[in-house]
This record gives sequence, C-alpha cells and structure tokens, in this order.
Amino acid sequence: MERVPRSLSGQQALDLVGSGGVGRVGVSTDDGPRIFPVNYVVDHGTIVFRTAPDSELGRHCWGDRVAFEVDSIDNDRATAWSVVISGRAVPVEDAREIQLLETRDDLRPWAGGSRPLLVRISPLSITGRTITA
Amino acid sequence: MERVPRSLSGQQALDLVGSGGVGRVGVSTDDGPRIFPVNYVVDHGTIVFRTAPDSELGRHCWGDRVAFEVDSIDNDRATAWSVVISGRAVPVEDAREIQLLETRDDLRPWAGGSRPLLVRISPLSITGRTITA
Repeated sequence: MERVPRSLSGQQALDLVGSGGVGRVGVSTDDGPRIFPVNYVVDHGTIVFRTAPDSELGRHCWGDRVAFEVDSIDNDRATAWSVVISGRAVPVEDAREIQLLETRDDLRPWAGGSRPLLVRISPLSITGRTITA
Repeated sequence: MERVPRSLSGQQALDLVGSGGVGRVGVSTDDGPRIFPVNYVVDHGTIVFRTAPDSELGRHCWGDRVAFEVDSIDNDRATAWSVVISGRAVPVEDAREIQLLETRDDLRPWAGGSRPLLVRISPLSITGRTITA
C-alpha cells in the first residue's frame, strides 16, 4: 500500500498543532542541537510554552531562533501528520498576557516543578505534511 | 496529584528508545535549528534512521552534531518518559552493515519515497526521565 505525502498550508498546519499535546522545541547550543519536549498552546497564531528561566531550554528563549515540532501517527489507519515551525523564542512579559495564558490548562507543567517563564514562538516559517494510505 | 520526575540511566533510556516508533532528529543550520521526524532502530547502542542524501536532513548527516529525541505520554495513567540523545550523525557505508539494516522493518520509510541514505547516531550523551503520578 503506497502512502502519499501531501503538503499542508500554514493555516492547516497551525490548525493541527492547535489540537494540542506534546511539542518539541529545538535549540542550537555551543554543544550542538538540543530537543526538549514541552506542553504548549496555540495563541493567536503563535506557540506558547512554559519553562524554567535557568534551564538549558530557558537560556535559549531570549530572542534565539528555535524549531518547534509536533507530529501524530495513527498506525491503525496508516495516516500521519507532522508540522515543523521555525521562529524566534521570546519571553511573554506583558502582565495581562501572562494572566490570560495562566488560565490555560494545557500550559500546566506536566512534570510538576516550577516553570515560571512563559515563552512565545512567533512563526517565521511553517511546514506541514500529512501522509495517508 | 503530584507527578514525580525521575532520571533514567543511559541503559534504561536506550531500552525505552528501543521500543521503537517515531523519533525526531534536531540539527543546527545557518537558518537556525530544525527538527525532522524519522523512523529509527536501535542498533548496538546506536540510533539508525533513513533519509535522502539531498534532503535538508541528509545534508547534516556527515559528521554533524545532532540531537535525537523520543517521548511517550500515557494520559490515562499519567505517566510519561522522554529520552534525548546527543551525538554525531554519520552515514553507514559498510556494505554488510547496510545489508543487515535493510532487513529491519522499522527502517522502511513510512512516508514512501526514496530515502537511500542510512545514518547512524553514536550517542555522546543520553538523558532520560520518566514521570509518574
């Protein structure tokens, strides 16, 4: 059974990312690239996640270029999609924005612990594709 | 319900990664970090995946430092694990190794298409953790 990849528009890709779950943030460090799983929300066409400011991820969220990836595979139906976003990560500093974002359940830190820094990725490029049988 | 993160040993982490599925390779490019979902196998303590030599990923698999990430979340049981590997990506060039790897079903390209380059990541560091309720 041949599987057919198909490109998604930026909006289609963001709609899929908006279904939530686990995303992965990629950063470039002096010791090579790193990947960190995060919970996230889509907020007005941007990605927002939470981290600790003194973590390895947090230290690369002050204007750095980052990658953000979400994927989903349904083996039973032989379908899959993946979306990769490239953008710049900046802390959310506006008190009102922080207050609104704090109400979003999906930003609750899954692993517990203190992750007070909210970080926003504004997409510079969005690449998505689906694969169906 | 408080969730408790726990670090894994390198071997425990590799054992989890060995359960297969989708992994994500992170590379650093001149335009910032990129993340690519891949199928993979664990082979003698290394990660092997398949790509096209002329793809954006393939162009960063000739000795580049890369990150490799796998995670799994079970929302019903409120458990999760994630493993991040850092290493160098090099093509598999030995004909006998290629022949053996070609027999592994998990390396069949999920999305179809031609991905003749087999790439091996030899871990320089392995970081894994589980989170349980």
